[in-house]
Amino acid sequence: MRIAELRVLMKARGIDAYIIPHGDAHASEYMAEHWLAREWISGFTGSAGLVVVTANKAGLWTDGRYFIQAARELNDQIELYKSGEPDVLTYQAFLEKELPTGGKLGFDGRTITAAEFAKIKEALEDKNLTFAYKEDLVGELWKDRPSMPTAKAFEHPIQFAGKTVAEKLADVRAKMKEKRITAYLLTALDSVAWLFNFRGNDIKFFPVSYAFALITHTEAHVFIDSEKITLPDAIQHDYDALPKFLQDFKTEKLFYNPNTTNVLLAEAIPKGMDASKLLKPHEDIVPMLKAVKSPTELANIKNAYIKDGIVMVKMLYWLYAAMRDNPPVTEGDIVRTLKNLRKEQPFYVCDSFATISAYGENAALSHYNSGETGTTLRAEGFFLIDTGGQYLDGTTDTTRTICLGTISEEMKRDFTLVLKGNIALSRAIFLKGTTGSALDILARKPLWEHGKNYRHGTGHGLGYCLGVHEGPHNITQLYNPVPLAEGMIISNEPALYKEGHYGIRIENIIAVAAAAARPLFADEMQSQVHARLEASSSGDSDSGNCDNPENPKNPDGTFLSFETLTYCPIDLNAIAPELLTEIERNHLNAYHQKTYEILSPHLTPEESEWLKEATQPI
Amino acid sequence: MRIAELRVLMKARGIDAYIIPHGDAHASEYMAEHWLAREWISGFTGSAGLVVVTANKAGLWTDGRYFIQAARELNDQIELYKSGEPDVLTYQAFLEKELPTGGKLGFDGRTITAAEFAKIKEALEDKNLTFAYKEDLVGELWKDRPSMPTAKAFEHPIQFAGKTVAEKLADVRAKMKEKRITAYLLTALDSVAWLFNFRGNDIKFFPVSYAFALITHTEAHVFIDSEKITLPDAIQHDYDALPKFLQDFKTEKLFYNPNTTNVLLAEAIPKGMDASKLLKPHEDIVPMLKAVKSPTELANIKNAYIKDGIVMVKMLYWLYAAMRDNPPVTEGDIVRTLKNLRKEQPFYVCDSFATISAYGENAALSHYNSGETGTTLRAEGFFLIDTGGQYLDGTTDTTRTICLGTISEEMKRDFTLVLKGNIALSRAIFLKGTTGSALDILARKPLWEHGKNYRHGTGHGLGYCLGVHEGPHNITQLYNPVPLAEGMIISNEPALYKEGHYGIRIENIIAVAAAAARPLFADEMQSQVHARLEASSSGDSDSGNCDNPENPKNPDGTFLSFETLTYCPIDLNAIAPELLTEIERNHLNAYHQKTYEILSPHLTPEESEWLKEATQPI
Repeated sequence: MRIAELRVLMKARGIDAYIIPHGDAHASEYMAEHWLAREWISGFTGSAGLVVVTANKAGLWTDGRYFIQAARELNDQIELYKSGEPDVLTYQAFLEKELPTGGKLGFDGRTITAAEFAKIKEALEDKNLTFAYKEDLVGELWKDRPSMPTAKAFEHPIQFAGKTVAEKLADVRAKMKEKRITAYLLTALDSVAWLFNFRGNDIKFFPVSYAFALITHTEAHVFIDSEKITLPDAIQHDYDALPKFLQDFKTEKLFYNPNTTNVLLAEAIPKGMDASKLLKPHEDIVPMLKAVKSPTELANIKNAYIKDGIVMVKMLYWLYAAMRDNPPVTEGDIVRTLKNLRKEQPFYVCDSFATISAYGENAALSHYNSGETGTTLRAEGFFLIDTGGQYLDGTTDTTRTICLGTISEEMKRDFTLVLKGNIALSRAIFLKGTTGSALDILARKPLWEHGKNYRHGTGHGLGYCLGVHEGPHNITQLYNPVPLAEGMIISNEPALYKEGHYGIRIENIIAVAAAAARPLFADEMQSQVHARLEASSSGDSDSGNCDNPENPKNPDGTFLSFETLTYCPIDLNAIAPELLTEIERNHLNAYHQKTYEILSPHLTPEESEWLKEATQPI
Repeated sequence: MRIAELRVLMKARGIDAYIIPHGDAHASEYMAEHWLAREWISGFTGSAGLVVVTANKAGLWTDGRYFIQAARELNDQIELYKSGEPDVLTYQAFLEKELPTGGKLGFDGRTITAAEFAKIKEALEDKNLTFAYKEDLVGELWKDRPSMPTAKAFEHPIQFAGKTVAEKLADVRAKMKEKRITAYLLTALDSVAWLFNFRGNDIKFFPVSYAFALITHTEAHVFIDSEKITLPDAIQHDYDALPKFLQDFKTEKLFYNPNTTNVLLAEAIPKGMDASKLLKPHEDIVPMLKAVKSPTELANIKNAYIKDGIVMVKMLYWLYAAMRDNPPVTEGDIVRTLKNLRKEQPFYVCDSFATISAYGENAALSHYNSGETGTTLRAEGFFLIDTGGQYLDGTTDTTRTICLGTISEEMKRDFTLVLKGNIALSRAIFLKGTTGSALDILARKPLWEHGKNYRHGTGHGLGYCLGVHEGPHNITQLYNPVPLAEGMIISNEPALYKEGHYGIRIENIIAVAAAAARPLFADEMQSQVHARLEASSSGDSDSGNCDNPENPKNPDGTFLSFETLTYCPIDLNAIAPELLTEIERNHLNAYHQKTYEILSPHLTPEESEWLKEATQPI
C-alpha cells in the first residue's frame, strides 16, 4: 500500500528509482522518530539497512546482524537483499541493473551523506543519471509523521565541560588557521553540542539537540531553534535556515566532513568555496579535539565510572539475591533494576543505549533486545549484560558475562580466552603513533590460537555525555589511520559467540595514558602490579627504572599504555584459573582488589560482603 | 665542475631546475652501474637520495640512515638536506620555493616513476610548469659512463620454476580477464624474469636482465636484447623498442603499475588506453602471483634454506675455531668465508645482498659495510652477521647475533627481548585476511614493554632467485593492505640497536601455512611443540582436535600460521633464560633440536659436535 502510493508519486515526478536510507540529516547513530522513514515504508526497525524502490521492484539491503529480524518485520512487497552474501547484488549494482540510461534517481538529500552520494555517483557514472535529491516523497505520504523534536536543551556547566566555549573556539580556530580553512561547517550533533557546551533531549540515548554550526575566524553561527536554548557565545539562527545561509555565504575555503554532511547541504555550498578535501574525514577538527579528553573531563569520567560501577555491583548483588531468594527473574527485570539504580546516581541523564540483557543462547544474537520481559533466567549457563548511562560527567558502557550455576569446561575455557584477550589489551604498552588497528590482535590472540574469533570490533571511542560510540579512533581489524593518543578513551571488549548456545563478552573502558614502567616477567609480584595500578591512577609513575618506557629522553620514542576506568568484578566462577598465566592472575587479582577498595565504601554491608567474595584473589 | 657543466646545459635548454634521482628505468632496488647518475654528479653512494640543481643552488635529499655518509662523500658544491629533520624542506617544497611560475623542470624520465611524477605535479600544480622529462643531461656530460650491461641471461629450468611460461601466462590472463584488462605492461625486472622463466646477470645481487614485457590475451611481447637470450614463449623486441612500440600499440585498457613504470613509458601510452587505475599498485597481477610460492617453489626454497643453514653453521664453527686457535679475525674475513662456503653449495648463483658483518658498535649502524677488512673481532661483546645467497632454488637471508665472550646483563636482556619477539611472531596464528601490519606488534611487544623499539620493518617478502626484498606484502608498523596468504614467505627480524655500543637482530624466514592446532598454555610439552613442527613441515596437521583452527567448517573462519624455513642456531650464551616463558623455552629447544637433526648429516664431525652443543636444550 505505502509502496504503491510511493510509486504513484515517483511516476508523477519522473523518478525511476527512489532510495530510502536509515538516517537523519546529521548521520547520527541514534535519531528522533521524525527520521524513521525507512521504518515507516518497510516495517523493518533495525539500525542498518536501506530501501530502494523502482516501478516494479522494491528491496531492503541489510547486513548479517539483521537477516532474521528483517525477514520477520519486512512488509511483503519488499524483497530482502542479504548484503555480503554470495551473489547478492549491492544496492548500487541493483540500481545499475535496473535504472535506464539517462534515468532519474530520487531521494531525500538530507538523509544521505555527501560521501555516500559520491560513491553512488561513481558506481553509476556510466548511466548519465539525473539526481532528484530534494524529494522527500515518504514525507509527503507519511500523514502522522512525528514532528521534529522540540525538547529544551540545557547548558553543560563548566564544572563538567572543563573549557569555556571561547577556549574551545580558540582551539578550533588555531587548527583552522594551520590548515588554511576560513570557514568550518559542523554537522555532527555531538560536535556542535561539545563545542558550544550544551546538551539536549531530542534523541533517546544521545543527549543532544538538532543543530548545525558554522565557524569563521571572527564569527560562530549556530543553527538551533531559539525555543530550545539561548547560546551566549553564538550568533543564533533557526535550524532550517542553514541551506539558504550557505547560498549567500562568502568565504575562501569552507571545510565540511563529507561523512556527516548531507547532500542537501553539500550541494548548497558554492563549488569555489568547497574545501572538503583539505582534511581527511578522520582529521576533522572537532572530532579530533573532543576525542582527546581534557584533564577535567577525564577526572569527571573516572568519577562517572565509579558511579556506574556502584550501579553494576548493586545490580549484580540484587541478581544474586533474587536468584537465591525470590525467583523467577527475567531479562526485563534486570533492565528495570539497572535503570532504577542509575537514576539514584548524581548527574544521571539517561541510558546511553538499550541495555542488552541476554540469557543463554540469546547472548549469541547481536543486538538482542529482551523487551519488557524476555527470557526467565535459570541457575545454569551464562547471562550477558551490556549496559551504560549518560551522566553529565561521562558516558559509560560496561559488559559482564555472569555464570548463573553449572557451566561446561568448554564454557569456562571460552570465558577465560576472552578474559585473556581483555587483559592483554589492557596491559598493552605501545609506541606513540600506534593505531588501534595495530593493537587489535592483542585482544584476539588467545582466541585465534584456538581457532576462534568474534566478528566485531574490539573497541570503540566514547563521547562525554554524548554518543556511546564516538570516533575517530577505534580498535578493529579494519585499518583506521587515527593513532591512539593520550587522553582518548576506548572500549576493550573481546567476545565469543556460540550460536544457539551462549555469548561471552567482557567490556571495560580504558584511557590512553603515558606508559608506566613495570616488570614484564613471571616473577612480577602482585604488589608491583598494584603499585603500577596505583601509580597510573594517581597520575604518578615509577621513575627509578632506567628502562622506563615514558622516559622523555628515550631515544626509541615515547610510549603509551592504558588505564582501566571500569570497576566491576569479573565472574570468578566462569574462569578456568589454570589457563591464566601468573601475570594474568596477578593482574586480575590487583584489578579486583582495586575494585573492592573503590566501590565498597558506597555499598550496603550485604553488597560489600558479596563484593568481597566476588573479588577474592585466585 | 660537474655541477657547473650541468648548469651550462640546463641554461642552453631553458631548464630552471633539474632532478637527478637514484634509480634505473624499472625502479629496481639494485641496478647496473650505468644508472648511477646521482652517484656521478654528487659523489654520494647511498641507496636512497636525490639531487636537485638550479641555476644557483644544488642539494641532496637523503634520510637519517645516510646523514653521516652523505656529509663525508658529498661533492662540496651540493648542500645536504636532511629529510625528516625539523625545518628541512622536502625537495618538492624546495622546488616550489625556487622555481619561477611557468618555469621548466627537467629530468631523465626513465629514472622517475609515474607515481613519483604525479606527486611532483600535485605539489607544484600552482606553478604552471613545463616538464622536460626526456632530458638525460647527466648522460650527455658523463663521458666514461658504463654502457648498459650485456651479460647473458639463462633459462630458469622447470625443475626450479615449477610452472611453464604458458601456465603462468594463463594465470596472468585469467586475472586480466577478471579485471577487464586487455593489455598488461610489466616493468619490474623480477616480474618479467619470473613470468618468462629466465634469470640474468645484469645486476649485482639481483639475478635478472634488463627487460620489459607487454601481455595481451593473445600475444606476449618481451623487450630484451636478443644477444642475451632467446625466449621461446615470447615475441621478442629490442630493449629500447618499447616506447615506440607503445605509441603504435592499440588496445582498450592497458594496465601498468605506476610505482614501477617510468615517466617516459607512462607518457608514451595513449591516454585513452591508460587503465593504470583499474588495480591498485599493491594488487598488480604478477607481483601478487609470484608472492604466493607454488608447492614446487616452496619445496625448493626449503631446500635452499637447508643449504644456507649448512653454510651458516660451517661459518659459525669456523669463526668459533678461528677465534680460539687462529686470531685475529676481521669482519672482512667472515664475509669471505661465507662467500666461499656458499660457492660449494649446489645451484649457487651469487650473494643476495652485501653481507653485513658488524662487530660491536658497528652493528648499531644501519647499512654498515666492513669493506675488505673492517674491524678485528675481540673475545667480548656481540657480532652481527646478516647474509644471504641467490640459489636457483631460492633466495636466502639470515641474521644472527653472536656472543663472542663477556656480555653485560643488559645485553643479555636485550638479546632475549629480541628473541621473544621473534618467537612470538613465528608462533602467530591468525585469521585469513590478516595483514602483516596487524601482526607487527607481536614482534615488538617484548621490546615496547621495556620502552625499546627498532626503527625498521619487522619483515619483508623475498623473491625466488630474485630480489631479496620483494613485496607486495610485508610486516611493518605502516599500514599495508595486502593480507598474508598461504604460500607467501617473509622475514621475521626484530632487532634492537644501542648507538655506540651494539646491535642485535635475529632474522628467520617464515612461510605462511594453514594453521596447525596446538596447545597454548604453560602445560604445553616439548613433545607437543615438536609434533607440531613435524606436522607443519610435512604438510600434515593434527586433526583430532575439535578446536583445530584449520578446520574448514570452522564458523569463525580459516586460520593461518607460520612455518620457519631458516635453520641456524640462536646463540644460547646470549640468552637470559629466566626471561623466557616455558612456552618460549620449549619453542627454542624444539627449534634447536630440529636444526641439529636437519643440518648435522651435512657437517664434519667437528662441526656437528659444535652444533650439538650450540643446540642443547635450555
